[in-house]
Amino acid sequence: MSETPKTPILDRVRLPSDMKGLSDRELKQLAQELRSETISAVSVTGGHLGAGLGVVELTVALHAVFDTPRDKVIWDVGHQCYPHKILTGRRDRIRTLRMGGGLSGFTKRSESPYDPFGAGHSSTSISAAVGFAMARELGAETGDAIAVIGDGAMSGGMAFEALNHAGHLGKRVFVILNDNEMSIAPPVGALSSYLTRLYAESPVQDLKAAAKGAMSLLPEPLQEGARRAKEMLKGMAVGGTLFEELGFSYVGPVDGHDLDQLLPLLRMLKARATGPVLIHALTKKGKGYAPAENSADRGHATAKFDVVTGAQVKAPSNAPSYTKVFAQSLLAEAERDERIVAITAAMPDGTGLNLFAERFPRRCFDVGIAEQHAVTFSAGLAAGGMKPFCAIYSTFLQRGYDQIVHDVAIQRLPVRFAIDRAGLVGADGATHAGSYDIGFLSNLPGMVVMAAADEAELVHMVATAAAHDEGPIAFRYPRGEGMGVEMPEQGKPLDIGKGRIVAEGARVAILSFGTRLAEVLKAREALAARGLAPTVADARFAKPLDTDLILRLVAEHEALICIEEGAVGGFGSHVAQFLSEQGVFDRGYKFRSMVLPDTFIDHASPEAMYRSAGMSAPEIEAKVLELMGVAVAKRA
Amino acid sequence: MSETPKTPILDRVRLPSDMKGLSDRELKQLAQELRSETISAVSVTGGHLGAGLGVVELTVALHAVFDTPRDKVIWDVGHQCYPHKILTGRRDRIRTLRMGGGLSGFTKRSESPYDPFGAGHSSTSISAAVGFAMARELGAETGDAIAVIGDGAMSGGMAFEALNHAGHLGKRVFVILNDNEMSIAPPVGALSSYLTRLYAESPVQDLKAAAKGAMSLLPEPLQEGARRAKEMLKGMAVGGTLFEELGFSYVGPVDGHDLDQLLPLLRMLKARATGPVLIHALTKKGKGYAPAENSADRGHATAKFDVVTGAQVKAPSNAPSYTKVFAQSLLAEAERDERIVAITAAMPDGTGLNLFAERFPRRCFDVGIAEQHAVTFSAGLAAGGMKPFCAIYSTFLQRGYDQIVHDVAIQRLPVRFAIDRAGLVGADGATHAGSYDIGFLSNLPGMVVMAAADEAELVHMVATAAAHDEGPIAFRYPRGEGMGVEMPEQGKPLDIGKGRIVAEGARVAILSFGTRLAEVLKAREALAARGLAPTVADARFAKPLDTDLILRLVAEHEALICIEEGAVGGFGSHVAQFLSEQGVFDRGYKFRSMVLPDTFIDHASPEAMYRSAGMSAPEIEAKVLELMGVAVAKRA
Repeated sequence: MSETPKTPILDRVRLPSDMKGLSDRELKQLAQELRSETISAVSVTGGHLGAGLGVVELTVALHAVFDTPRDKVIWDVGHQCYPHKILTGRRDRIRTLRMGGGLSGFTKRSESPYDPFGAGHSSTSISAAVGFAMARELGAETGDAIAVIGDGAMSGGMAFEALNHAGHLGKRVFVILNDNEMSIAPPVGALSSYLTRLYAESPVQDLKAAAKGAMSLLPEPLQEGARRAKEMLKGMAVGGTLFEELGFSYVGPVDGHDLDQLLPLLRMLKARATGPVLIHALTKKGKGYAPAENSADRGHATAKFDVVTGAQVKAPSNAPSYTKVFAQSLLAEAERDERIVAITAAMPDGTGLNLFAERFPRRCFDVGIAEQHAVTFSAGLAAGGMKPFCAIYSTFLQRGYDQIVHDVAIQRLPVRFAIDRAGLVGADGATHAGSYDIGFLSNLPGMVVMAAADEAELVHMVATAAAHDEGPIAFRYPRGEGMGVEMPEQGKPLDIGKGRIVAEGARVAILSFGTRLAEVLKAREALAARGLAPTVADARFAKPLDTDLILRLVAEHEALICIEEGAVGGFGSHVAQFLSEQGVFDRGYKFRSMVLPDTFIDHASPEAMYRSAGMSAPEIEAKVLELMGVAVAKRA
Repeated sequence: MSETPKTPILDRVRLPSDMKGLSDRELKQLAQELRSETISAVSVTGGHLGAGLGVVELTVALHAVFDTPRDKVIWDVGHQCYPHKILTGRRDRIRTLRMGGGLSGFTKRSESPYDPFGAGHSSTSISAAVGFAMARELGAETGDAIAVIGDGAMSGGMAFEALNHAGHLGKRVFVILNDNEMSIAPPVGALSSYLTRLYAESPVQDLKAAAKGAMSLLPEPLQEGARRAKEMLKGMAVGGTLFEELGFSYVGPVDGHDLDQLLPLLRMLKARATGPVLIHALTKKGKGYAPAENSADRGHATAKFDVVTGAQVKAPSNAPSYTKVFAQSLLAEAERDERIVAITAAMPDGTGLNLFAERFPRRCFDVGIAEQHAVTFSAGLAAGGMKPFCAIYSTFLQRGYDQIVHDVAIQRLPVRFAIDRAGLVGADGATHAGSYDIGFLSNLPGMVVMAAADEAELVHMVATAAAHDEGPIAFRYPRGEGMGVEMPEQGKPLDIGKGRIVAEGARVAILSFGTRLAEVLKAREALAARGLAPTVADARFAKPLDTDLILRLVAEHEALICIEEGAVGGFGSHVAQFLSEQGVFDRGYKFRSMVLPDTFIDHASPEAMYRSAGMSAPEIEAKVLELMGVAVAKRA
């Protein structure tokens, strides 16, 4: 797709130790080459481009100045780490990013000692850095801890918790606030306006002089260093009272793309800092690559692309994505019911709620990266008489779990949870798997839990949620395209707790919860060829269970197999609990529950992940055959 | 224990509407009477005393000025709500606080329209208030929203998320920061120091004049009101830049016990405020009751007591509490291994870690009310080479769930989770029940999950956790006293994933996970009298399962009953999944899993709660008899 760029200096750098002999001029050249190499690699693999391009110079500066891996550089979220991976012994595999068996798209402890703390979710880096710093204070063999965190991630509550604790401890730890005015969507929240004011009021060029001035102080003997460094840092702080109130020395804003500022500043801080320091760096997402800089999301995540034109190579799609179906269905409901409001935690595009925000700007709330608040804010809206749809990916909903229990379920407030990215998600890997929501929602009293088997079902589930005012309700659906089924004109509320028979068969029944239904039907075809076509049912609800349907399936079949895109403890466990209490097992009954295996599954295509999880058509077929005692020759 | 105090004005106030005709002088008198009544009530019931006494004047002022229940007063945590309950139609039941069938010790929506949003956990009130406020902006029939939140609760990340969002929205909402310098323990964190500086730099008396000045402005025509109010608020703000940076108007600090300040200030703000306002009120926990004011925790939670002396009436204890056994065992391990560190989220006393902090101050971290940070900070400590024991109650650990998955389990970091208050907890009721941790931990790959059957087992589990460096490990134990068993000299690491037979029997086996073991043994005695003494085993581990033990029990008995102090989806579900995959059910086998019922169980004694949950000795006995087909006459 593009020729590999010429990178004479980068070619000499396999590890950060190879950078130690480079002059500042060579480091600048290295940054240029690193940028080209990053663009070239992502053009082949797809992935997060904009974030990495925004931290090329920061990456070079950190590895040039600090002693990684003894010093710990912790990248918040981790999706900006491609340049970091190239500089830390992984350049030879950089064109395998996010592919099965290849490099992770995030930092990952098991991948390299240069990744001291993995990520994927946002706002964790400061907590981790404070942990490393305190381990050092207590004598552990570890160096400095540096968290690099975006302005969007800074809106997450746990980042504030960590700042508050670090300021209280008063020990040396570095937080680099990578302020690119854009996390995925433009950031929201008062903090973001505050940061904008900070640099609007203090032009970057002033600081450049200050940073150079700091350099001239370096040769001085280090006696009195602590006192002096503190004063100097104070002098440099031209704003940032919010961080200073929390006990941090504030330095900035600095131009995060100017190594003439970054290198002397980091060298000075490394030599002198005694307590917690926040460095406010201004960067530009997508920096140095025009197609990214000019796109609305600054090249946040991209498919493979042509380096010259930036044109992305996307596979043609056969069906609308679940995300889009959800968004359009919700919009249709909202046209009919003005009490419907929508809430997203910094994911307007990912959840499809950008459509809602365009049509009903006052009724759509982007709360920032703040899932805890998103859930309880939704609960407040519900208590105030609205019909909130709180749209959060399965994996991120884990962050609002206590709020779901304490503020929504116990109070029986009718919050609607739209759970995108349920099940295995592909290239984002284990950190983003939506494996646990069925389990952690289905054991909450009064909760209704649905999973869409296809995109038409999703339309009806949105309508069901809109109509359900008696308490909380959740519906889950996967990442990616729908099945291409015929779409209904309008959603119709489903009967709560009622499943449906999809195909009649004999001897074996398969009760599917979610989009494994398609694989089940494929398996059914193969089984039919052997004269063993099972009955297939779509449970629709994990809670309340359709006990009539389950008992009927049990009565009419020798065996029942449940299947769901989730870990043990969810749908199948609830069915098992019901059947055991009914005494069904006492008299002998073949029951199996197919769930995700007890491992974190690395990134690959969703199809490959489900195959490795043993939940595709061939494995379902094999399960039925084994259960029914049909001997089969092992396939290759 | 004490005579009911004379309360002539309070006697005329059944609901806040009865306060509307009272003069400010009468309101002051009302506050005195309300304080006496609160002290008198808690002397009979026990409960949270200090927090309520700290907000007596605030409670009177809010109900006098605002139009509750149309205006929504949302008490953060809710344990300071006793005076509020007395003023809102519940005085006749105030001496039933926290008792079975009586008033909840927290706010509760189902109890009164004056409780617009229930609580129990901390830091949720601002999110809820913003939800109500935005519902109002969108046309819902609801008035002002006022969150009352303590300085400790303000350290919780979701409070920051909510401030950040509210400041961004810019709509009218009130946050009263109830700064009493003490949540449960003295607050920690940089925010707390910041608040102290705020009022150290601006004596309260200045503000008093300002507030009176504000009063004089009130008769003015309301034209230009918005602009003027804004200016006035600005003028009153003598500090609080942190909150102002987040988009709030800051007012204060004011003396939260002085109605001459509170009443005019709230009246003025009610008439004039247009955007988000933060009112910084200084209060004293335990105010007006010397025994509370003078105690170390300012009368945070108390048993029944003598009003005159403050002497608490505690039942004599027969055995050490699990909390104390945990703390002493950890201390013993820490004496032997200097890598052991301890982490609490604002619960040094509740978790017993105050002992640890006294002995090893540098190795004990109180991070504030910040469970998310607590977990990831622990992960950072573990990655840095330490052995962190992260001690968080089961119910509060829900707040760190995503961090457990994403930062601990996926990275296989050896964080030790000490989970106190597992299972039903008694007087704190449904919000504090530890019902879900078995489920949400046991389906995480690589996690080890233990439950102590008695206090001696807990000692060994602490030793097991200290020795386990291969990945994360958790152990749970209940609130309250141990069983009075003989204690080991020193903890000995258990074999990971191995249970134990406690009593041999025949026909039926009961496999217990946790402290139901004592009830199981009681049931066994009763069953033995009928010639049906079951084998009793203690699973010790929910993960990994002791599959050898389970298969042996199945092989040697006609029936297997699992029991655990948790919801469905936990231990019993994992056993069921294992047995079904083993084909045990295919050939007919009696299996039952006794779990908490699918309801939120209201406060009562733990014993009464477990009886209502059907998990005490008589219900276990009945379960065995029913399962074995023994007909029994129903008992009365």
